[in-house]
Amino acid sequence: THALAPGPNPNPTHALAPGPNPNPTHALAPGLTTDHQNATSVSNHAPGPGPRPSLSLSPGLTPILTPSPSPSLSMPLTAAPSTHRFALPGPVALIGSGGHARSILLALQALGTQVLGCYDDNTTTHGTLMCGVPVRGATRDAPDVPWVLCIGSNEVRQKLDSPGRRFATVVHPSAQVSDHAAVQEGAVVLGNAVVEGHCHLGRLVVIEPGTVVGHDAIMEDYSFVGANSVLGGHAHVHEGAVCGMGNLLL
Amino acid sequence: THALAPGPNPNPTHALAPGPNPNPTHALAPGLTTDHQNATSVSNHAPGPGPRPSLSLSPGLTPILTPSPSPSLSMPLTAAPSTHRFALPGPVALIGSGGHARSILLALQALGTQVLGCYDDNTTTHGTLMCGVPVRGATRDAPDVPWVLCIGSNEVRQKLDSPGRRFATVVHPSAQVSDHAAVQEGAVVLGNAVVEGHCHLGRLVVIEPGTVVGHDAIMEDYSFVGANSVLGGHAHVHEGAVCGMGNLLL
Amino acid sequence: THALAPGPNPNPTHALAPGPNPNPTHALAPGLTTDHQNATSVSNHAPGPGPRPSLSLSPGLTPILTPSPSPSLSMPLTAAPSTHRFALPGPVALIGSGGHARSILLALQALGTQVLGCYDDNTTTHGTLMCGVPVRGATRDAPDVPWVLCIGSNEVRQKLDSPGRRFATVVHPSAQVSDHAAVQEGAVVLGNAVVEGHCHLGRLVVIEPGTVVGHDAIMEDYSFVGANSVLGGHAHVHEGAVCGMGNLLL
Repeated sequence: THALAPGPNPNPTHALAPGPNPNPTHALAPGLTTDHQNATSVSNHAPGPGPRPSLSLSPGLTPILTPSPSPSLSMPLTAAPSTHRFALPGPVALIGSGGHARSILLALQALGTQVLGCYDDNTTTHGTLMCGVPVRGATRDAPDVPWVLCIGSNEVRQKLDSPGRRFATVVHPSAQVSDHAAVQEGAVVLGNAVVEGHCHLGRLVVIEPGTVVGHDAIMEDYSFVGANSVLGGHAHVHEGAVCGMGNLLL
Repeated sequence: THALAPGPNPNPTHALAPGPNPNPTHALAPGLTTDHQNATSVSNHAPGPGPRPSLSLSPGLTPILTPSPSPSLSMPLTAAPSTHRFALPGPVALIGSGGHARSILLALQALGTQVLGCYDDNTTTHGTLMCGVPVRGATRDAPDVPWVLCIGSNEVRQKLDSPGRRFATVVHPSAQVSDHAAVQEGAVVLGNAVVEGHCHLGRLVVIEPGTVVGHDAIMEDYSFVGANSVLGGHAHVHEGAVCGMGNLLL
Repeated sequence: THALAPGPNPNPTHALAPGPNPNPTHALAPGLTTDHQNATSVSNHAPGPGPRPSLSLSPGLTPILTPSPSPSLSMPLTAAPSTHRFALPGPVALIGSGGHARSILLALQALGTQVLGCYDDNTTTHGTLMCGVPVRGATRDAPDVPWVLCIGSNEVRQKLDSPGRRFATVVHPSAQVSDHAAVQEGAVVLGNAVVEGHCHLGRLVVIEPGTVVGHDAIMEDYSFVGANSVLGGHAHVHEGAVCGMGNLLL
């Protein structure tokens, strides 16, 4: 297991060389032992307006595991695909109207999510359509509904995060996400991605289509993994780091 | 964004070096501005016997975008997965009976398409079965139903194209194709591929399983992308070009 | 087509260099000609307690093809997705409780399979939970239901194989597996993988998420292919060989 830390100039296609101060220490050591820690359960799948709860284990990372009751011997462990929990009826507002918005809209359309419009600080986009969605104004004009940050820059997504804001968690229905992964508010998981058990997906992370996030992997807040990549078991992507398209992180 | 042009001897696994006369000029500049051009709407999803319409924007490439009405604020943008529009009841005739036919048959079986038979100019295949489908004769014996060209060679697919012929567009139901991608007649998109918004898929292109075609990418007519590849946003694959398996095109 | 043979120290990420005694000879030559051989039909999808049948073609490999009746011209070739045949109601017992168990559990949860528990020879795991599944004891304590070997080591899976034991075949419902692939008992095919026509998947093989197994490829018993890899058409992975994550095998 190696860790991917952000360098000073993250580049989506050449980011595997860590920056000058990589910090490979796991803030939260993943593994079965945490099954027995008195972990705080944090659910962000129905994001609410309140502040994020304080964490008992480690600042900045929420627990990966929530204790589950033992399954009955006479009942199936689960009767429905795990992605049912990621329904997103909306309404939502898209922040940004460029290429990354087109990528995310594919998931929102498959989910049947109500989209109120795009909001983009580039005034030349105002009044245009992004794949049929009107660009209605600047970010400051966006309504008080959960936002979807359609912005590839990790730095900009981090700047737009604030405790009083709500962010929609977007998981394409074709993505396979374990019920035992911890998915934080605002995470975006695109088509045909796979997220295995005990993974941690931090706030406002982006997983592009076809990427496999192996068991026990950690993506810290505001990180990004490009299309058709693989994060191996126990891989660790640090806060704000970028793993490009088609990369392997062991 | 770089362009992939065909070399004189395209090789599916080493095709990233462009040929001697690469032409990186975009025949159709993708982007939001085309939302406001008076684009001709071209639908090839129910292919008919008529000739292709003439194009106002650029010969050889159809418009990527069709103007969409603004969504109502009180209704979801879309209520159904976007791939529903790619139903293919058939009947169809398969041209070719080799390995690529087996790849495409996987999509046709998932779609429940009626397949009349294979037609192959290699007479030693006549009377045999290809995964249960009888090889009934040569190409000239194929009936007047939409054809599915099960031929990996871009050159041969191009030779078989003609205005009076109908070709089925085959999209595996597990593939995620944007409603805002322009998919031309005869395109084949195999299992678990992803095609994002504003993409252009030309006539008789092939996208093998697991490949991600990023927003605004262009695959010109008769081009081919191998399995688990990534075409990044705005990537451009020229007419008849091959991008091999597991490749990245930025 | 090249063959991948196991070396003395298989390493999941650097296994493409074959070992000192590679045996590239195809035990079963794939191709259409086998359509006409009097192939023995072997179905392992409903594994029973009896011994494996003896094979007429080649020891150690079962036939890829079973003769299929010609489809009626007035009926669809198939009306349902091919993965319906891989229902797995259970109950099953998981052997192992580590990271690979978390990977496989994602498929079992999507299938709605009843899981009785994990059984692991590491006694420190006893009494713990693996993603909510209790670890109930050692391998010798596992009940007489079909087992799912949640063990990444090909060598250990092979050691646990025996004629009197039943193994569940696990295919994630998002995986696209051809009806004309031969899938042997105990094979595991994870999320969004694709297995095309005429493939042979041997006993207790593992195909990790997102991997594409091209037409006519052969994975012999106890072999393993990592996530988002591609086995090209007619590729051959020998008994017990490992093909790592994101690899291409032509």
